[in-house]
Amino acid sequence: MSHYVPSRDLIARVAAGETAATARLITRAEKGLPEARDALAEIYKRAGRAHVVGITGVPGSGKSTLVAVLAGKLRTRGVKVAIVAIDPSSPYSGGAILGDRVRMTELATDPGVYIRSMATHGVVGGMARAALDVVDILDVAGFPIVILETVGVGQDEVDIARASHTTIVVSAPGLGDYIQAIKAGILEIADIHVVSKCDRSDANFTLRDLKASLMPSPASGPSPWIPPIIGTSAVKHEGFDELIEAIDRHRAVAFDPDAGNDRRRHIAGFRLLKTAENLLLDRFAASVDNRAAPLIALLARREADPYSLATELLEPTNAEDKSR
Amino acid sequence: MSHYVPSRDLIARVAAGETAATARLITRAEKGLPEARDALAEIYKRAGRAHVVGITGVPGSGKSTLVAVLAGKLRTRGVKVAIVAIDPSSPYSGGAILGDRVRMTELATDPGVYIRSMATHGVVGGMARAALDVVDILDVAGFPIVILETVGVGQDEVDIARASHTTIVVSAPGLGDYIQAIKAGILEIADIHVVSKCDRSDANFTLRDLKASLMPSPASGPSPWIPPIIGTSAVKHEGFDELIEAIDRHRAVAFDPDAGNDRRRHIAGFRLLKTAENLLLDRFAASVDNRAAPLIALLARREADPYSLATELLEPTNAEDKSR
Repeated sequence: MSHYVPSRDLIARVAAGETAATARLITRAEKGLPEARDALAEIYKRAGRAHVVGITGVPGSGKSTLVAVLAGKLRTRGVKVAIVAIDPSSPYSGGAILGDRVRMTELATDPGVYIRSMATHGVVGGMARAALDVVDILDVAGFPIVILETVGVGQDEVDIARASHTTIVVSAPGLGDYIQAIKAGILEIADIHVVSKCDRSDANFTLRDLKASLMPSPASGPSPWIPPIIGTSAVKHEGFDELIEAIDRHRAVAFDPDAGNDRRRHIAGFRLLKTAENLLLDRFAASVDNRAAPLIALLARREADPYSLATELLEPTNAEDKSR
Repeated sequence: MSHYVPSRDLIARVAAGETAATARLITRAEKGLPEARDALAEIYKRAGRAHVVGITGVPGSGKSTLVAVLAGKLRTRGVKVAIVAIDPSSPYSGGAILGDRVRMTELATDPGVYIRSMATHGVVGGMARAALDVVDILDVAGFPIVILETVGVGQDEVDIARASHTTIVVSAPGLGDYIQAIKAGILEIADIHVVSKCDRSDANFTLRDLKASLMPSPASGPSPWIPPIIGTSAVKHEGFDELIEAIDRHRAVAFDPDAGNDRRRHIAGFRLLKTAENLLLDRFAASVDNRAAPLIALLARREADPYSLATELLEPTNAEDKSR
């Protein structure tokens, strides 16, 4: 099908679970095509059934391996899984998977699994906007679980992991992750903590440190949910039943009409803010005309400062009329 | 000095090389304090002498160790060095340095070295804006070289590394970095390539792969600069004389009135754009009032889509007047 199918006409095919149509609409969402806007609005209104599970951790924490084994375990239970990876060091590439790990190859050829790796570069209109549109498309395509994997470095990536129903933060022994994660501010966003690589002898230290750091603070109010700490081993396939059980339990909280309300409002608020910010920046980019060049020249010669020139650049185009 | 010194009054002290005043103004720049705006404008106009060297690479590439050894080598030549690290996995913390490596402890107690670790969270008004303000302050404080270390993950971090006079991209053997770096799009921004950990036997493969991938493309025009590839070993202290020589050679190109013109314009353009974007987003954040809450509620119930509601949120506050 080489002719251009309007995005509106792809919706029914996505809803019918057609992989090619789903992939097409996802590509348009990533590119931020104006033509796809109405279709994505319709997708948003239809979505809301999938359980969105954000998984994050510092590089080297074993996130991608954890995701692969978790997806495999869900498949043996007959659950379809979609994976959206936003991580330049992720072993996925496009629809294919780099590397030769058997379990990943199995996943790649399983029609009950959809894997999408999003580049962090070249996504138009903001990564958060694009990632959450992609999640909605997969939701409408009928995946009951959508895993959103991000590297826990950088504000955007952490915010995206937090804009899920259930956020899993992965720590690993031997990385100094404990300190790294605290510094990156990601431990506090966890609904579920995973310590990966628990076949290693030093994993006990990581588990102990994590437990010590998560002592409930007396300042925090009553909560219906206490984040569990789960040790996993991808090598020994241990801890995954416990992890799936925790994910299911948290799903019940997140989808509860009352208990999940704050979280849904947080997600919607983040989405509205990011969409508005992207729209604002798009309009600004479209409005920057030949007025910028002389300002850049002034700035390069350090004859004026960035703040003053930026203020000038943001003036309405007819600013010179006022000074007459 | 516990009383509040106006930022304007700190400028002369910064210019005199007073460390306490420099640290104070840097903290205010990070916080994006409006009170510091005029002082930072003045700092910008006074700056422009320091050679800003951006160093980036994927996590685990050995960036921080490279920076530490490089700074030590520059110190033995009598050159003062400032280091600004934007990396949650960086071994620096505040003014202090985590970890117990001797060379880092030496650096931390050397008055000819200033180290500042910037959190990627909680920086107000954008990381790029803040980082480049900090670089200017250190420039005015008299550091002839300011090293700007960022992790090569995420668009912001890569853009910041590129907004320097000289960008060094660090690769390391055994990480699959080669593929990672290409995927992250950071190899192409290098003025100088470093392959770290060249004491390892597999470093030859990394060097070879890198050379093969950097074959000059026939499409590219004539350039006064061909990025060299330098192997270093922090353990054996090898390759650093060659690296310093390459940095010096590139400095001559970057500061050349003609050859460096495009680069200076790129840096100024990036700075103007980022400052304008931050200003725009600040204004938007200040304008979001109680109109947002009902829109978020609609969105959480999926009764309307993000794009339509964001468009509505961006309408001027008196939008309802029009509909009368």
